[in-house]
Amino acid sequence: MKVSFIGLGIMGRRMAANLLNQQVDLTVYNRSAAPQEDLVARGARGAATAAEAVRGADLVFSMLSTPEVVEALFMGSEGLLDSMTPGATWVDCSTVNPSFSRRAGMAAAARGIRFLDAPVAGTKPHAENAQLTFFVGGPAALLGELDFLLRYMGAKVLHIGEAVGQGAAFKMLVNVMLAQSMVIFSEAVLLGEKMGLSKDFLLDALPGLVVAAPFTKFKAEMVRSGQYEVQFPLEWMHKDLHLAAITAYEHQQPLYLANLAKELFAEATRQGMGRLDFAAIHQHLAHTA
Amino acid sequence: MKVSFIGLGIMGRRMAANLLNQQVDLTVYNRSAAPQEDLVARGARGAATAAEAVRGADLVFSMLSTPEVVEALFMGSEGLLDSMTPGATWVDCSTVNPSFSRRAGMAAAARGIRFLDAPVAGTKPHAENAQLTFFVGGPAALLGELDFLLRYMGAKVLHIGEAVGQGAAFKMLVNVMLAQSMVIFSEAVLLGEKMGLSKDFLLDALPGLVVAAPFTKFKAEMVRSGQYEVQFPLEWMHKDLHLAAITAYEHQQPLYLANLAKELFAEATRQGMGRLDFAAIHQHLAHTA
Amino acid sequence: MKVSFIGLGIMGRRMAANLLNQQVDLTVYNRSAAPQEDLVARGARGAATAAEAVRGADLVFSMLSTPEVVEALFMGSEGLLDSMTPGATWVDCSTVNPSFSRRAGMAAAARGIRFLDAPVAGTKPHAENAQLTFFVGGPAALLGELDFLLRYMGAKVLHIGEAVGQGAAFKMLVNVMLAQSMVIFSEAVLLGEKMGLSKDFLLDALPGLVVAAPFTKFKAEMVRSGQYEVQFPLEWMHKDLHLAAITAYEHQQPLYLANLAKELFAEATRQGMGRLDFAAIHQHLAHTA
Amino acid sequence: MKVSFIGLGIMGRRMAANLLNQQVDLTVYNRSAAPQEDLVARGARGAATAAEAVRGADLVFSMLSTPEVVEALFMGSEGLLDSMTPGATWVDCSTVNPSFSRRAGMAAAARGIRFLDAPVAGTKPHAENAQLTFFVGGPAALLGELDFLLRYMGAKVLHIGEAVGQGAAFKMLVNVMLAQSMVIFSEAVLLGEKMGLSKDFLLDALPGLVVAAPFTKFKAEMVRSGQYEVQFPLEWMHKDLHLAAITAYEHQQPLYLANLAKELFAEATRQGMGRLDFAAIHQHLAHTA
Repeated sequence: MKVSFIGLGIMGRRMAANLLNQQVDLTVYNRSAAPQEDLVARGARGAATAAEAVRGADLVFSMLSTPEVVEALFMGSEGLLDSMTPGATWVDCSTVNPSFSRRAGMAAAARGIRFLDAPVAGTKPHAENAQLTFFVGGPAALLGELDFLLRYMGAKVLHIGEAVGQGAAFKMLVNVMLAQSMVIFSEAVLLGEKMGLSKDFLLDALPGLVVAAPFTKFKAEMVRSGQYEVQFPLEWMHKDLHLAAITAYEHQQPLYLANLAKELFAEATRQGMGRLDFAAIHQHLAHTA
Repeated sequence: MKVSFIGLGIMGRRMAANLLNQQVDLTVYNRSAAPQEDLVARGARGAATAAEAVRGADLVFSMLSTPEVVEALFMGSEGLLDSMTPGATWVDCSTVNPSFSRRAGMAAAARGIRFLDAPVAGTKPHAENAQLTFFVGGPAALLGELDFLLRYMGAKVLHIGEAVGQGAAFKMLVNVMLAQSMVIFSEAVLLGEKMGLSKDFLLDALPGLVVAAPFTKFKAEMVRSGQYEVQFPLEWMHKDLHLAAITAYEHQQPLYLANLAKELFAEATRQGMGRLDFAAIHQHLAHTA
Repeated sequence: MKVSFIGLGIMGRRMAANLLNQQVDLTVYNRSAAPQEDLVARGARGAATAAEAVRGADLVFSMLSTPEVVEALFMGSEGLLDSMTPGATWVDCSTVNPSFSRRAGMAAAARGIRFLDAPVAGTKPHAENAQLTFFVGGPAALLGELDFLLRYMGAKVLHIGEAVGQGAAFKMLVNVMLAQSMVIFSEAVLLGEKMGLSKDFLLDALPGLVVAAPFTKFKAEMVRSGQYEVQFPLEWMHKDLHLAAITAYEHQQPLYLANLAKELFAEATRQGMGRLDFAAIHQHLAHTA
Repeated sequence: MKVSFIGLGIMGRRMAANLLNQQVDLTVYNRSAAPQEDLVARGARGAATAAEAVRGADLVFSMLSTPEVVEALFMGSEGLLDSMTPGATWVDCSTVNPSFSRRAGMAAAARGIRFLDAPVAGTKPHAENAQLTFFVGGPAALLGELDFLLRYMGAKVLHIGEAVGQGAAFKMLVNVMLAQSMVIFSEAVLLGEKMGLSKDFLLDALPGLVVAAPFTKFKAEMVRSGQYEVQFPLEWMHKDLHLAAITAYEHQQPLYLANLAKELFAEATRQGMGRLDFAAIHQHLAHTA
C-alpha cells in the first residue's frame, strides 16, 4: 500500500516517522524543506510538490494547521483531490470544525475519494512515542481497513460515529474542555497564593484531586518553572475555541464559559504568547504591572 | 475526652454517627429535632440547647451551612464561645470563607479557646462511609492531638498550613473548581449532542479523559437519569462561588470564569433548583422552551 | 437611471417604497411574492427572477438577511453579478461583516461592477419615514453620484471611509453597542426591582440619564408592556454579535462583554424568542420559574 | 440652621463651597487639614475633631469614600451619632450599598436622629458648578425641609422612594451602568481601529449615536489624549461593582455583564490604574505587549 503524508509540523513529522519505523511505503511533503529532508534521510520518498506526493497513492494522511490550509491545499481548483486516484482514501488528522470535515468529505466523495476525519489527542511526546489517541468519524468498514496504520502512530483508536465529522466533533469537545480546565486550574492557583498558600503546595496538591482534570499534573510543572515549551501552541487553542464558538452558534447552543475562555486566549495571543504552550495562559492571568 | 457536635444536616449527622461508631463520648445538638433524636437512639447524649451541648466539652465540632449561621451561633453576645470552657477546642468543619475563619479564630482566642478550621471534601456517601477528606488550617501540634477523631470520620486529613483559615482557603479552591468543572462538562455534553453524538456515548466517554475532572464520572449518572438527588445542594455551591468572589475582590485577583459560573448558579437557584444536587446546573443549561 | 431593489423584508419594502415616492424608475424582486406585489401596485416593475430584476439596471440595491444569502444570490456561479451590466453599481445595504463586504467588493470589481457597502441604522419606523442613517464604505466620488437616492430613504448619510467594508465595520460597532446597552439596561431594571424600586419608576428614570443609551427610551415601552413587536429581530442581533466575534477573532481583539452578550442572545434564541424584537432579551433575563 | 459637612475630598470640598456661596452657616471637618483650611478661608467654621463638628448641628452632611469609613466614623461606639443632638438630621451623600444605608438609617433612628441617603451623580466639574444630581431615599416630608440645601449643591433632586436606602439603590444602578457603558464604548473603539477606522473618527462619531451613553462624549477626550485625570477613581468603580455583585447575590438576581466588567476593573486595579479615572479601563483593554 502506497501511503503519503502531507504536513510535517510538530506533530506530523513524528507521526510520519512512526510509519517509517514500521516499514510503511511512505512519500512525504511539507511546505518548508527541513522536516521533509529529515524524513527522507530516514527512508521516506520526498516529493517536490504536494500534487506529486499524492499522485498514485492509495492512502493520503494530512496533518495541517487550520481548515483554511486544508481547504486551500486539497479542495480548491487544482487541489490535491484532483490529483488523487479515484478509489483512494484521504484521512485528515488536522483539528478542524465538524462542518468543515463534512464539507471535505463531500468534496472527496464528489471525486470518488473515500474520507475519514481522524483528529488526534495528545501532544509532542505522545506523537513521538506513538501514544496518540485517534478520534475517527466515518464508516467503520473503512476504518477497519486502515486501523493498523493508525495504531502505528497511536495507542488508541476510538470510532466516534459512522458520520463524517464526528471525529472532529469529539476532538472539539476535548480541546474546549482542555482550554477551560487549564484556566480553572490557573485561577485556583492564583487565588490560592493570594490567600497565603504556597505555590508549590498548590501545584502539588490540586492536580491530584477529583475536581481537577488529570492533565494539569503535567502543566503544573510548566507553571512551576515558568517555562512554557510548546507542546500545543496557545494560538491553536485560541483557534479551537473560535471554531467551537462558531459551531455552537450554528446550533444555537450557548457556551458561556468557553466563550469567555476564548477571550482570555485572545488577549494572551495579542500579548505575544501564541507560540508558547497553551498552559502559558497562566502567565497571562498571573501578570501584574 | 468529652466531644460535642453542633449541626446535624446531611453531612453532620453522618459524621457524628461515625464518631459514635468508635465509642466517642458524644453530645449532639441540632436546631430541628429529628436528626438529634436519631443519634440519641444510637447512643449520643442530646442537648436541649446549643449552650448546654458545649458546656464542659473538651472539643466542639461544628458543621453549619453559612458563615452567618456560624457567627450567630458561636460569636455573638451569649454565643457558644461564651459557654465553652477556656482551654477547650473548637473545630469548625463548615465551608466558609478564609477571612471569616480568621475572624472566628480570633474570637475563639480572645476567650482562651483553641481553634482549627477543618472543612471537608466529599458528599453524602463519603460522610456515610467515613471517606471524607479534611483540609485543616491551624497549628500542626493541635491537629496532632485531634487527628484520630478526624480519621474516624474521614479517609484523609491534609494539614494545609499553620495559619487559621488555610483549610477554608483550600476548600474554597476545591469547590470553585468543582462548580466550574461541572459547567464545562455539562456544556461539552450539550454541544456534543447538538453535533450529533449520542448523550450516552458522551456521558460514558468524556469523564474518563484526562481533560475531565474525575468526579464527573459520578455526576454523569445524574445527568443520564435526570435525577439530581442532593449530595451537595446547588444553592450552597452558589454561596461558595459568592464567597470566592468576595475573597478574590479582597485580594484584587480577577476570577473570570468563576464569576461567570456564579451567575449561572444564581440563575439556576432563581429557577428553583437550589435544593437539588449542584449537578442540576446541567438541567438549567439544557433547558429549552 | 434604472434602479433595482433586491430583498423586500421588513426594511427593504419600506426603503423601496420611499424610492417610488420620489418617482425613481424602480424594478423590485423578492423571494416571496406578497411584498413584491404590494410595491408593483404602487408603481414598481416586478421581476420574475432576481436575474431579470438586475439585467440592464444602472444601480442595484440589496437588503438581505445574512452574508450567506448575499453570497448565494450575487456571487456564486450564475449569480447576479454575472447578470449585471459592467459599469453598473451595486449598493449592498445588508448588515454583514466587513471582511465579507470586502470580498463582495472584489467579486464585483472582477466583473467591472462598482460597489458600495451601505448598511443602515434604524428600525421599521425609521425605514417607513425615510429616517434611516446610512453608513457608507467606498469611494467618496461614487457616493457623490448616488447620495440623492440614499437621502430619499434616509435622513443621514455618513461616509465612513474610502475603503469598501468600512460602512459594514461601523454598522457592526453600532449593533454590538446596541445589543450590550440593551442587556445593561435590562439588568439594571431587574436589579432595581429586586431592591424595591418600582418597575415604572425605573423605566421612566433610567433612559433619560447620561449613563443610558438614548434608544432605551423606546425599548422601555416594550419592557413595560411585555409586548416585543419586532422592529429588529432578536435572532438578527444574535447573528450580528456572532459576526462581531468572528471579526474580533480575525484581529486578535478580545471582546469580553460582547461575547458574553452573544451567549445570552443565543439562549434567548433557543428559547424561541428569535422573531421578537431584540429588546425581548429582557423577557429572557427576567424569566423566573 | 446650623449645618456641618464631614468629608472634604474631591467632591465634598466643592459641595461645601457651594453651601458657603449661599451663606449657609457651615462647620466643616476633614481628616487631612488642607481642604478644611481652604474652606475656613472662605468663611466656614473649622472643627478640630469630627465630634466637635457635629455637636449642636441641626443637619450633618457626610461625603465619604466607602461604607467601612462611614461605619467607623458614625456608627461605632463613640461614633458621631452619639455626639449628634437627638432630632437632628444626617444626610449621607456617600456612595454605599443599599443594605448598608438601611443599617445606617436604623442606627440613626435608634438615637433619635433623622436620616436620608442622598448619593450624587456627577463628577468634579458637576460638583464645582452645583450641577450634581441627588438621588434621595427616605421620607418625602423630611426631604421637603432640606431640599433647598441640596439645590445649592445640585441641579436636580430626585426623590427615589420613601424607604431609606432607595437613593443608594438607584445610585448603584447608575454606577453599574456607567462602568459597563464605558467598557462597551472602549471595546467598540478598539475593534473599530482594528477594522481600519481611525481612532479620531470613532471618538467623534460613536458618543453622539443613540446606542452610546451620552457621558462617553466626555470620556472620549480622555481616551483621545491618554490622560485619565481622575474625576471618578477606577478603584471606586471596582468597589461599586463589587457592592452590586453582593446585592445581586442577596436577591438571587444574575448580573452577567456587570460581574464580568467587575473582573476587568479588578485586573485594571491590580495593574495599578486604581487612582486614575475609571475611563482608564480603556488603557487596560487597549494594552498590547
